[in-house]
Amino acid sequence: MAVASVSTITSASPVGWQDAIERGFERASKTLRNITGMQVVEEKARVEDGRIVEYLVTMRVIFVLEDRSS
Amino acid sequence: MAVASVSTITSASPVGWQDAIERGFERASKTLRNITGMQVVEEKARVEDGRIVEYLVTMRVIFVLEDRSS
Amino acid sequence: MAVASVSTITSASPVGWQDAIERGFERASKTLRNITGMQVVEEKARVEDGRIVEYLVTMRVIFVLEDRSS
Amino acid sequence: MAVASVSTITSASPVGWQDAIERGFERASKTLRNITGMQVVEEKARVEDGRIVEYLVTMRVIFVLEDRSS
Amino acid sequence: MAVASVSTITSASPVGWQDAIERGFERASKTLRNITGMQVVEEKARVEDGRIVEYLVTMRVIFVLEDRSS
Amino acid sequence: MAVASVSTITSASPVGWQDAIERGFERASKTLRNITGMQVVEEKARVEDGRIVEYLVTMRVIFVLEDRSS
Amino acid sequence: MAVASVSTITSASPVGWQDAIERGFERASKTLRNITGMQVVEEKARVEDGRIVEYLVTMRVIFVLEDRSS
Amino acid sequence: MAVASVSTITSASPVGWQDAIERGFERASKTLRNITGMQVVEEKARVEDGRIVEYLVTMRVIFVLEDRSS
Amino acid sequence: MAVASVSTITSASPVGWQDAIERGFERASKTLRNITGMQVVEEKARVEDGRIVEYLVTMRVIFVLEDRSS
Amino acid sequence: MAVASVSTITSASPVGWQDAIERGFERASKTLRNITGMQVVEEKARVEDGRIVEYLVTMRVIFVLEDRSS
Amino acid sequence: MAVASVSTITSASPVGWQDAIERGFERASKTLRNITGMQVVEEKARVEDGRIVEYLVTMRVIFVLEDRSS
Amino acid sequence: MAVASVSTITSASPVGWQDAIERGFERASKTLRNITGMQVVEEKARVEDGRIVEYLVTMRVIFVLEDRSS
Repeated sequence: MAVASVSTITSASPVGWQDAIERGFERASKTLRNITGMQVVEEKARVEDGRIVEYLVTMRVIFVLEDRSS
Repeated sequence: MAVASVSTITSASPVGWQDAIERGFERASKTLRNITGMQVVEEKARVEDGRIVEYLVTMRVIFVLEDRSS
Repeated sequence: MAVASVSTITSASPVGWQDAIERGFERASKTLRNITGMQVVEEKARVEDGRIVEYLVTMRVIFVLEDRSS
Repeated sequence: MAVASVSTITSASPVGWQDAIERGFERASKTLRNITGMQVVEEKARVEDGRIVEYLVTMRVIFVLEDRSS
Repeated sequence: MAVASVSTITSASPVGWQDAIERGFERASKTLRNITGMQVVEEKARVEDGRIVEYLVTMRVIFVLEDRSS
Repeated sequence: MAVASVSTITSASPVGWQDAIERGFERASKTLRNITGMQVVEEKARVEDGRIVEYLVTMRVIFVLEDRSS
Repeated sequence: MAVASVSTITSASPVGWQDAIERGFERASKTLRNITGMQVVEEKARVEDGRIVEYLVTMRVIFVLEDRSS
Repeated sequence: MAVASVSTITSASPVGWQDAIERGFERASKTLRNITGMQVVEEKARVEDGRIVEYLVTMRVIFVLEDRSS
Repeated sequence: MAVASVSTITSASPVGWQDAIERGFERASKTLRNITGMQVVEEKARVEDGRIVEYLVTMRVIFVLEDRSS
Repeated sequence: MAVASVSTITSASPVGWQDAIERGFERASKTLRNITGMQVVEEKARVEDGRIVEYLVTMRVIFVLEDRSS
Repeated sequence: MAVASVSTITSASPVGWQDAIERGFERASKTLRNITGMQVVEEKARVEDGRIVEYLVTMRVIFVLEDRSS
Repeated sequence: MAVASVSTITSASPVGWQDAIERGFERASKTLRNITGMQVVEEKARVEDGRIVEYLVTMRVIFVLEDRSS
């Protein structure tokens, strides 16, 4: 119960950083059960022809470890 | 006039980070008079049952020191 | 083609950080051609009379170097 | 043989940091075979009614990667 | 309720770091009501004649802000 | 006796950094009794019309905590 | 598609750092499908009898997350 | 003569980091006259289909400032 | 008006760090119009025959960006 | 009298970190006379067969410099 | 000729930081021959009865290694 | 046996960083017996007339302390 793992995730969105965070969080929820927290680490963007085409977020996700036996 | 102090504040909101920043700023204004600036230091979230239930912000608040005598 | 330079920009807005980022990015686009990316480094605010009067952003802008000869 | 992975773990204990480290290490051993090292990264505590109720440790655990095929 | 402040404390003990942490925590509890957490930042020692005579700890203490009006 | 607090101060002077440090230290002495040490953290300047008009210093001030009861 | 995970790997080689990076990368490819990037974090060496006997590299590997359901 | 500027450059190569450094240095030499030094800051790689397709280097380049009047 | 750029400068003086800062600032003013601030980043010295022969300063200079069109 | 040097030491123990610190301090005392302080920098462990077999500590030791002539 | 060592020194003065740097440098020159450079790392002060009684400097000193055989 | 010291070395070579590391390591071996490890900390270069004339490396060398008495 008291032991958790910290995983670093990067996520991208064409809309904005908030959307990238939500996509990353949603995607992480599929792989990592029992997420208890997250932290935004970095906000970047990819630019093409003078326009931001991809919002990039790096975030840490904390999730409780489940026993392998169970 | 020219001497200020830097205080570290953490604030939480069920709605979002922007709301957490405003709550923290509003709360700090009650205790610290003469605030001249602030800085966002960290954005985290607490998660329960696959949903973000609390947005957490750490911020530094700068306020001008008043003389004790006055 | 493969060589880029990283420039640090600060930008301000009376509206919010998102607006400050857009202003800074728009302004950088006028001076720096061929921007390929950006990164948010710091979010601060200037406060007067208990209200945020200026949102300040520091960001890194990456742009491809053009040959001087061309 | 020579390739290892580094995993970040957080662990908690009502007794003390040493106990939290041992719990986290014991728990990690169940999931990660072939642990070769660990490092203490952060020691925190949660406080309620003037008493420390939970000792929290963040630690990095290094373990040798096993081939998926084997 | 959701807004807390972070204060940095240094504490010393002739016995050991654990004792220095407890002294610092106990002392902080007298000034700061509603402490919710703490974090160990640095462990040092002062040495005289080949013996450690003072164990020094720097720690961050988090406490909920109370309204001035109340 | 052995427990101290660390406060971050910013100070400004039209003359120079040394003067800004002295002003900040003098001002801190009025609010914080029992200062035992300080540390220079950052030296900046504000410039107008090609001249430095304000020297800015950020410093940490260490002061022994007094009991509230006493 | 847009969500990736960052994994920290350490790798060793008796020949050199370049070889250690290649071994680590090769090994990571067996466990982590869809690697999109990597970053060298640290270069160390183990020495015995005045000779480097093991070149050690710490690197971060970025790989796209696959859905568990698929 | 004694005043220099520091510029951050990123460079890429399909061959290796050493080649990326040389390309970046060669390219910087075309824009920046009077380079006196450089420093490697970061070594990354982009991966496609299990192979490194682009070696990326971030480096700082130091060059003596020339007078605009001259 | 609100968008500024941050440039890193190194400067040297045979007299002292204060003189090196003034030289660097003076030199930067010739190239960069509209400087609004600066920050001292590093103070080093070069030594020959037991004497400091060159005081070296690294500083960041902030200047408002002018439109290329204007 | 007022000039001291800072030396970085690593120490190991099969028992625990506290023991490793004491061994390192004891050993440093044999080489470095006039130690005035120390600081714990890093706590790691080496693991074999699921058990910690070596507790590793990195610490900085401060000692007053003695004149060579004396 | 080309191989140098970096040593960390702390120095104190009742007069000021500049004096502490000179004392530390002078003292280091007695022990370390062939110093080629130095760098200021930290400036602190010890305070008693509201007055700075000791200015403390931490600095790195670089000196060329001499062969043991010679 | 279990207590080691960490020494910071800078080394230079006209050929390349790899050569600078080997020169520094070779030179360190003459002064420091019982080296057990090393770590690359920084890679820089000195440039003259558009060519790299000196490759500079900063590295940490770990060596087991021998008893003074022995």
